[in-house]
Amino acid sequence: MAVLTYDRQAEKWGVFEVTAQGVSEGNPFTERTIRGTFASADGNERITTDGFYDGDGVYKVRFMPSFEGEYTFSLEGNFAEGTDGSASDSTVPQPLSGSFTVIAPSEGNHGPVRVANTYHFAYEDGTPYYSIGTTCYVWELQSDERIEETFESLKKSAFNKIRFCIFPKHYDYNLGEPRSYPYEGTPTDSSVLTKENFMEYWTGMGKKDSKSVNHWDFERFNPAHFRHIETCIARLRDCGIEADLIVMHPYDRWGFSEMTKGQDDLYWNYVVRRFAAYRNVWWSLANEYDLMPQKSIADWERYARILCEKDPYRHPRSIHNCFALYDHTRPWVTHCSIQRTDLYKSSELADELRIRYGKPVVFDEIMYEGNIQHSWGNISGEEMTRRFWEAACRGAYPGHGETYLNPEEVLWWSHGGVLRGESWKRFALLHEIMCETPGVGLRPNPEGRGGFDGVCAVPEDLTRSGYYLIYYGRQRPSFRDFYFDDESEYTVRVIDTWNMTVEERGTFRGKFRIELPGTEFMAVQIRRVEK
Amino acid sequence: MAVLTYDRQAEKWGVFEVTAQGVSEGNPFTERTIRGTFASADGNERITTDGFYDGDGVYKVRFMPSFEGEYTFSLEGNFAEGTDGSASDSTVPQPLSGSFTVIAPSEGNHGPVRVANTYHFAYEDGTPYYSIGTTCYVWELQSDERIEETFESLKKSAFNKIRFCIFPKHYDYNLGEPRSYPYEGTPTDSSVLTKENFMEYWTGMGKKDSKSVNHWDFERFNPAHFRHIETCIARLRDCGIEADLIVMHPYDRWGFSEMTKGQDDLYWNYVVRRFAAYRNVWWSLANEYDLMPQKSIADWERYARILCEKDPYRHPRSIHNCFALYDHTRPWVTHCSIQRTDLYKSSELADELRIRYGKPVVFDEIMYEGNIQHSWGNISGEEMTRRFWEAACRGAYPGHGETYLNPEEVLWWSHGGVLRGESWKRFALLHEIMCETPGVGLRPNPEGRGGFDGVCAVPEDLTRSGYYLIYYGRQRPSFRDFYFDDESEYTVRVIDTWNMTVEERGTFRGKFRIELPGTEFMAVQIRRVEK
Repeated sequence: MAVLTYDRQAEKWGVFEVTAQGVSEGNPFTERTIRGTFASADGNERITTDGFYDGDGVYKVRFMPSFEGEYTFSLEGNFAEGTDGSASDSTVPQPLSGSFTVIAPSEGNHGPVRVANTYHFAYEDGTPYYSIGTTCYVWELQSDERIEETFESLKKSAFNKIRFCIFPKHYDYNLGEPRSYPYEGTPTDSSVLTKENFMEYWTGMGKKDSKSVNHWDFERFNPAHFRHIETCIARLRDCGIEADLIVMHPYDRWGFSEMTKGQDDLYWNYVVRRFAAYRNVWWSLANEYDLMPQKSIADWERYARILCEKDPYRHPRSIHNCFALYDHTRPWVTHCSIQRTDLYKSSELADELRIRYGKPVVFDEIMYEGNIQHSWGNISGEEMTRRFWEAACRGAYPGHGETYLNPEEVLWWSHGGVLRGESWKRFALLHEIMCETPGVGLRPNPEGRGGFDGVCAVPEDLTRSGYYLIYYGRQRPSFRDFYFDDESEYTVRVIDTWNMTVEERGTFRGKFRIELPGTEFMAVQIRRVEK
Repeated sequence: MAVLTYDRQAEKWGVFEVTAQGVSEGNPFTERTIRGTFASADGNERITTDGFYDGDGVYKVRFMPSFEGEYTFSLEGNFAEGTDGSASDSTVPQPLSGSFTVIAPSEGNHGPVRVANTYHFAYEDGTPYYSIGTTCYVWELQSDERIEETFESLKKSAFNKIRFCIFPKHYDYNLGEPRSYPYEGTPTDSSVLTKENFMEYWTGMGKKDSKSVNHWDFERFNPAHFRHIETCIARLRDCGIEADLIVMHPYDRWGFSEMTKGQDDLYWNYVVRRFAAYRNVWWSLANEYDLMPQKSIADWERYARILCEKDPYRHPRSIHNCFALYDHTRPWVTHCSIQRTDLYKSSELADELRIRYGKPVVFDEIMYEGNIQHSWGNISGEEMTRRFWEAACRGAYPGHGETYLNPEEVLWWSHGGVLRGESWKRFALLHEIMCETPGVGLRPNPEGRGGFDGVCAVPEDLTRSGYYLIYYGRQRPSFRDFYFDDESEYTVRVIDTWNMTVEERGTFRGKFRIELPGTEFMAVQIRRVEK
């Protein structure tokens, strides 16, 4: 007999969760099912979605309501004694239904992020979402203390998206064990690992892990692992931060990157059932899919189909490259998740990527600010900040990461912890300026004003004319002359993107000259005064 | 009757000059000829070359001997009474011949620069020439005082090539009159010029100079103009600096860019006759040929043919672009003279240009260090220095220029004068390191060592193995591991290209680690110890 537990109230775009007691014998992960149908009384919404086994005989079904008002739900499945997957076949009918009320969203809850205006994002309530991302691959698999440190850092920052993995990570500076594993079993003894030999333990990539003595049951998840990640997702959500979940990745010594198709599909379904109801979830199918030769394009497309079929909320979906971009024209790809493929050009390629794919361009990796030996992990704070502005003014979205050496080898890029760099401090100003864009989103000025002069951004919606954000990057003009028309007045602000000063320069008409300090990283914001 | 004046002695690769008195009536520039044949007694060399009219009834023929020993010469032409272009027809035979001795080259005289090892340069005596160029478009047309200032600056610098124009230049910050004009006549009154209206006075470019009242006789040169330039070429030569002569350019208000084909050819012939005997001359057919729509490709090819036919010494020849590279595969092009066509990549394109053209790649413009408003003229000293190292380590040759605002509006880029920037001070170190290359010239390591790690240079001659120059640019590794083989010993030097320090780090074998400061602009030089 199933006993249901649930709150009578949920907020719009919050998580409504029904908990049911069920059987724990056998392998509930593969043998048992639970499914809920959630319907609003006004008929605006009716969603059927799978639930999941959470261990100890506990089953859960989650739902993210999109409307305020009264809802009902009903469950089905063979999860409990007396249920066998068909409610009508139950020998003893159970009260597998209920009702609840969806109230208005709380402050700061704008709903899930959607693609808006072709190249940009907005929350479901229409508020533009200007992504300022960072990457901390396995911050959530560190100690409680470290996780608190990471949250403190995030709260001080302007980051509103963080990329991280569900599986643990094995790589240079990442040889420790995670706080938990996604499956029941035991890992290879990692005490034999050193900075010199760790590549031998890398699965996939053609390097077989001959020394591995991993013992996992890939059909039995460890619910505590996922429950912890959910806590982190929810806390991120409450901080206004999108959780860009990397579902698969190649940096593996445990064999999680080398499961069978059936095991993969089981994992994908479990992930979707657990996480999809969190409004701040984004799906990153992989970090560096092209470093996983064991997975074919057909595999990635199959995972994507699972997402498309099983995520009722259509969270943003993408897949991240190392060397070769995935075919981001695929219809399931909602936005491009780009790792720079050139040592010298990263954000500068936004224009052509926008044209090629006709989707939002997110530069999730434009190299890391830091000083490690690896080529991708040692640019300066100035250069990182430059790449952020360059991306933003080209109508794309930049991503941060930090790889500063320290005695504890706690690097933000993987572990979170404290931010040691200089660029992150500058992103609040950039975000503030991005939020001043008329309409939703910036784009490179199609009239090319600026030309070789860095980049000139205008609103994506060209009918919203009279707004220019010009970023000079490493160019250092001592002045610039402007002319738009003879009639209008324009207010001008000069922004020192590095020193974080914004100077009001007054109102101008006709041809006018703006004096600049002749230093790097300056921007000029020009707004027509509307009569 | 012709009276000849000449020295009885010349040095190898020096200028031997014969001066003859002749007629001054009519237009000697078009109506009179003088031609010399110079032959070494040992039969190694026999060159016939045209001379030129130098005004006031003076004719000159110049010759650059390439061998030591006894030489004879004979003249012909209708330059004098009693000569009519055919010595045998002279009514009174004249002593139109003589002899002289060519002695060993003086110190620092290595002969003219030639292409060497496909992608590089060497002086005729075999000494490698590692070009460190600068651009001062019309430095030689400034006041005597300014010219002396420029020479003082050059002497303090490592520059061994300077690009400059024979015609005066009209452009922003270049509205003044030159010290002299190449033709007899009078220019438009320049007192009407302002920073606002100067483009209206630009000839070519489709903007007709309706206000021009230039009056020139394009068939009568002003010898003083050319004589002064020769003095400058000779002084550069004596400073060890190549004179990269820009023969045509679009920045013109006098009409020198819009002469007829016949006038152009007269000019080209005059230039070659006067300048070719100076060993340090390079021919740059144009600065920004593609901004001269009034000249066709057929025109440029015709000028090139004049050079090929009339310059007996085969000085380096190229042609410089603004937006579109000239077809540098043309056989007369000895090396590529490149202006960067991308705001973000300049020297980084060396690899593909080397492959495309199979010739030395000279980046004569990679933007200017400075702070003027124009997009091409305001990078930092750090960025300029970075582009220099980046070019050098890719087996190409960088070019400098400076555009710092100052109250007098004397900008090195055009006027010469004092160097105000920071990059020029760093080039002596780069040149010193370039000169340590085994053999002639560096190339990008075909084994790709380095990869995304900046750039790794090895000797062009791959048989000279065991030498690596790795430049990290804006990357800031705190250490790098190296491994070449187990047997050899390698000495390592760490070069801070910006702070100009060179640290000997000792000798290493097998796998070894080099600690680095984690700052930008570092290089590592690794040399195998030969047993």
